[in-house]
Amino acid sequence: MAGEKITIIGLGLIGGSIGLALKAANLSNLTIVGHDLEGSAMRDALKRGAVDRAEETLEAAVADARMVILAVPPLAVRLLLEDIADLLPEGAIVTDVASTKGEVLRWARRYLPQTVSFVGGHPMAGKEESGVRAADKDLFRGRAYAVVPAVNATEGAVKSVLGLVEILGAEPIFIDADEHDQYVAAISHMPIVVSAALFTLVRNSPSWQEIAPLTGPAFRDLTRLASGDPHMNHDICVTNPEGVVHWLDRMIAELRRYRDLIMDNHEELFATFSAAQLQREAYLAGTDRPVRQRIEVPSAGDQMSTLLFGSWMTERVKKYEQMMKRMEERSRGSSTAPDDGGNG
Amino acid sequence: MAGEKITIIGLGLIGGSIGLALKAANLSNLTIVGHDLEGSAMRDALKRGAVDRAEETLEAAVADARMVILAVPPLAVRLLLEDIADLLPEGAIVTDVASTKGEVLRWARRYLPQTVSFVGGHPMAGKEESGVRAADKDLFRGRAYAVVPAVNATEGAVKSVLGLVEILGAEPIFIDADEHDQYVAAISHMPIVVSAALFTLVRNSPSWQEIAPLTGPAFRDLTRLASGDPHMNHDICVTNPEGVVHWLDRMIAELRRYRDLIMDNHEELFATFSAAQLQREAYLAGTDRPVRQRIEVPSAGDQMSTLLFGSWMTERVKKYEQMMKRMEERSRGSSTAPDDGGNG
Repeated sequence: MAGEKITIIGLGLIGGSIGLALKAANLSNLTIVGHDLEGSAMRDALKRGAVDRAEETLEAAVADARMVILAVPPLAVRLLLEDIADLLPEGAIVTDVASTKGEVLRWARRYLPQTVSFVGGHPMAGKEESGVRAADKDLFRGRAYAVVPAVNATEGAVKSVLGLVEILGAEPIFIDADEHDQYVAAISHMPIVVSAALFTLVRNSPSWQEIAPLTGPAFRDLTRLASGDPHMNHDICVTNPEGVVHWLDRMIAELRRYRDLIMDNHEELFATFSAAQLQREAYLAGTDRPVRQRIEVPSAGDQMSTLLFGSWMTERVKKYEQMMKRMEERSRGSSTAPDDGGNG
Repeated sequence: MAGEKITIIGLGLIGGSIGLALKAANLSNLTIVGHDLEGSAMRDALKRGAVDRAEETLEAAVADARMVILAVPPLAVRLLLEDIADLLPEGAIVTDVASTKGEVLRWARRYLPQTVSFVGGHPMAGKEESGVRAADKDLFRGRAYAVVPAVNATEGAVKSVLGLVEILGAEPIFIDADEHDQYVAAISHMPIVVSAALFTLVRNSPSWQEIAPLTGPAFRDLTRLASGDPHMNHDICVTNPEGVVHWLDRMIAELRRYRDLIMDNHEELFATFSAAQLQREAYLAGTDRPVRQRIEVPSAGDQMSTLLFGSWMTERVKKYEQMMKRMEERSRGSSTAPDDGGNG
């Protein structure tokens, strides 16, 4: 076989977008192979140019692959890890894009052979439409991309996944799996439930026929996540129940706080809305937090295939090693609870 | 004075966008006058061409006006109604754009002289940015626009406001004030609280510095309403507390329902997410409700000035009168509660 092979399993919005970004990078000596349970997804991915080739069986898809990207919902990651464990070539790098990482890392440890490196990933990107037809090579540009290496992942594997993140134009963030699940529960998993609950509550009101014509951009934006793939939304809640319930309980308490202010304390209500507006302005401007330390990886697309061999990074390796060390220190030194426990 | 004068009081995003749309309609014999407490808003409105002239005093702004548009938050509507009551010329039409209508209609009845017609309005439009600099003549295009005439409003006044809605490109919906407040509490007022609460909850977490870099489009979209003008958000809650608290209580109950499903019933959780996805698809496609009966008003811009005189609508007047009758029947025949009262 000429060059290196990267396999994307799951050709939906995320898998398709990764394929398009890899193809757009014009990497020499690299073949992008795709696989999906749905024949139509494979045909669409080929038509859109998201993959060079589609393989109908997992065996053929995974054979000789240097890197395997699992772009499926969390519970499907588990099934795939079991299925591909014996098919993976020695030294293969496996990564995923699932929204929860604790269970995924435990499954990888349980199912994958020691000769394989697992480096979990989670791009903080998405949009209302789903499927490879909605795929976009720029979907990840400027977005955070959580990188969660298994303890036994080789340095070369971690660097290769960093290279992938770089090609996608995303910003890699090293993070511990359980920490990831708590933090992302706050900003993504619990909000999915809030968004779906807002929609089902209003949609199932007997007055829906009167209400619907009045709806505007606010209702549409806030209920956007109710349109998410139900498998994914279900799997997220099922694989991170502690995180979701923890933040749901806090959200309910926060809604009660606002409720009390509306009933009893309009001055404080105004102060709360004012502070929120100012703080969100600072959040959008990025002025409420230190400048993020960017992980430097090569930006030229053609270095991706070099990356797969792990034979690069000389100056840059120092920065990378410093980041890894900081992450290790942090995960040793601190609990995974994202808050002071006051509402736990 | 040549032609007719329309006065916009409050030159923010909404007032400025109305001005731009009126100017873009190129109505002959029409002068758009603007007033704002902030000199900078008046200067910006002039610079953007949202008004023909700015007046520094309410007296001058309102003098000889055929129509006065109050584009300010709810509580400011009250102050303005008090202030302009004695300044308005006989036969003037007053409308507003405030997000709540029950209190506004009661204030109009209390403060305005009988010689003046009040027709409340509420465009279901908005965006993250505020101020006249963010104004956009197409802000209202295709959006619902609630029209809530006072009982003593003349037919000519109602038709003139319908003409305004038409020029903005919005879809007029006749609705009773209290019904409006209950329905809009579900899709706008309560969601403002949800959006603000989600933001303040996560923003004030001790882990914010770790969480913020991971945030993506989901968190940004769902917290968008936290960036709303705190005066407006406050005024909405204060002028529609029953509506907001009613729907907040139901939202909390719905979040508890999801919480229980996450803990105990994953099958039902999946069914709930699946139904939400399908129902939202139908909602976006508009296939879950009857085709909205469009109120027909003239689309040619130049008829606006005719409208102000109330001397048009021959064929069309029948349709309009039918709609008014339907609304009256409905408001006589039904309670204003938007649901079956099960959670009330």
